[in-house]
Amino acid sequence: MADDARRRTVFFVSDGTGITAETLGHSVLARFAGLKLQQVRVPFVTDDAAMREVVARIDAAAVADGVRPVVFATLVNPALTALVAKANALVLDVFSPFIAPLETELQRFAGSDIGGFHAMGDADTYARRIEAINFSLAHDDGQSSTGLSEADVILVGVSRCGKTPTSLYLAMQYGVKAANYPLIPEDFERDALPEALPAFRSKLFGLTILPERLAQVRHERRPNSRYASLDNCRREVQDAERLMQRESIRWLSTTTKSIEEIAATIMTEVKLDRRGF
Amino acid sequence: MADDARRRTVFFVSDGTGITAETLGHSVLARFAGLKLQQVRVPFVTDDAAMREVVARIDAAAVADGVRPVVFATLVNPALTALVAKANALVLDVFSPFIAPLETELQRFAGSDIGGFHAMGDADTYARRIEAINFSLAHDDGQSSTGLSEADVILVGVSRCGKTPTSLYLAMQYGVKAANYPLIPEDFERDALPEALPAFRSKLFGLTILPERLAQVRHERRPNSRYASLDNCRREVQDAERLMQRESIRWLSTTTKSIEEIAATIMTEVKLDRRGF
Repeated sequence: MADDARRRTVFFVSDGTGITAETLGHSVLARFAGLKLQQVRVPFVTDDAAMREVVARIDAAAVADGVRPVVFATLVNPALTALVAKANALVLDVFSPFIAPLETELQRFAGSDIGGFHAMGDADTYARRIEAINFSLAHDDGQSSTGLSEADVILVGVSRCGKTPTSLYLAMQYGVKAANYPLIPEDFERDALPEALPAFRSKLFGLTILPERLAQVRHERRPNSRYASLDNCRREVQDAERLMQRESIRWLSTTTKSIEEIAATIMTEVKLDRRGF
Repeated sequence: MADDARRRTVFFVSDGTGITAETLGHSVLARFAGLKLQQVRVPFVTDDAAMREVVARIDAAAVADGVRPVVFATLVNPALTALVAKANALVLDVFSPFIAPLETELQRFAGSDIGGFHAMGDADTYARRIEAINFSLAHDDGQSSTGLSEADVILVGVSRCGKTPTSLYLAMQYGVKAANYPLIPEDFERDALPEALPAFRSKLFGLTILPERLAQVRHERRPNSRYASLDNCRREVQDAERLMQRESIRWLSTTTKSIEEIAATIMTEVKLDRRGF
């Protein structure tokens, strides 16, 4: 097929937050290499007048870019779907391919309660997420060993290997109470885990990282420090991996993984899925 | 249509993290009221042998439930898609409805680089997210007024109105540097914003909450305290709203909104979208 290197605008249009449109759109577009995309989010479009403004923006982008935009739309109201379909764009209705087969399979009609899983409807799940976020914040970086028995998982690893963002993502996305504890030179000298941890061995999960990448991350934080030096990073990573191996702690390397990939792997490895998260 | 109150299992099967399958599946299923669903995530299914095990699990769930499972699949490899399609289930291929129209529109073929937006591919965006998470953590709850000039948005509001989870979500989902500052009784006595804030007026965004809901949230944290009493919550909320109004700070009520809804609203109101997030 011909190449098309012009900039193109992608719209995520929704009567809710637009997170589903954006998540799906990103995954699908990631399969097309070399696109120059400008992204526009338009959430909470709930009436005809607002949608007419959106259509005008889409049409204006088509003129400005010299090429039709792509629109990912998650709309419950068929009248709004019909309006956006008139835009000068490739309009992809994200819900429609799945609704009819589900109606047949589930033997009931789809209602108009969009985004129920993101809304407050499921109050228990929502409260659990908030509680998990508070727990993970209070138990970040070994701040507190009180209440560790409530943790679903306790991440360990050297400073700056990715424990904090992973803990917060586990809490936010999955409602998992994730504590994290740094492994520091003092632990390696004692050649033992931090004192609070052996009691919770089954909950421990290790993160490691290539020393070269670690040095790079630490240099951004404390340029030219001993802490960030490649020699020191090599030693810490080696010591941490040796300690985790001896203590039979499962671990994974974060070097080439996104937060999402690390978190999804931990969910599977720690069998958290089977506990209903 | 007939009612079907049996428990049904929903599988999210992916060769990546499964986040797209789950996000889309949740949004679509939320439109069907009264389902009893058991959810199973199966991420990182990348070869035939693993997929055959997944199909066996799906078939076993069909027998156990007495009703076919629903499967949301995000798979790049057509051989894996063909395998999962043989399961005794309603198998919904999440990508396929969108790939062909996009190939025509973009005049190029879809590759097999699944999840590029979640993977490390887009290194700049990824580094920005990590930096935003670190920033939001360091500037949670007014911890630091150093570097506030770097903030994209500064949330203000009474204690426990939702500032912390919203700040972290803005950082995690959108790469936005979100600081947050509590409005406390001392501020109301002085009848002025915390000293660090007026310099950054254009970045301020307020959160408020119904006093009844605030009292409930605070009671969970400090049962039967003066802090949690309805009287005190009423006064704090009233004082905070009066202060925000006088200082011309936009605000929204978090009472019936999810973190996602609050964050998406802030993105729009503060015009962060237009700044390329």
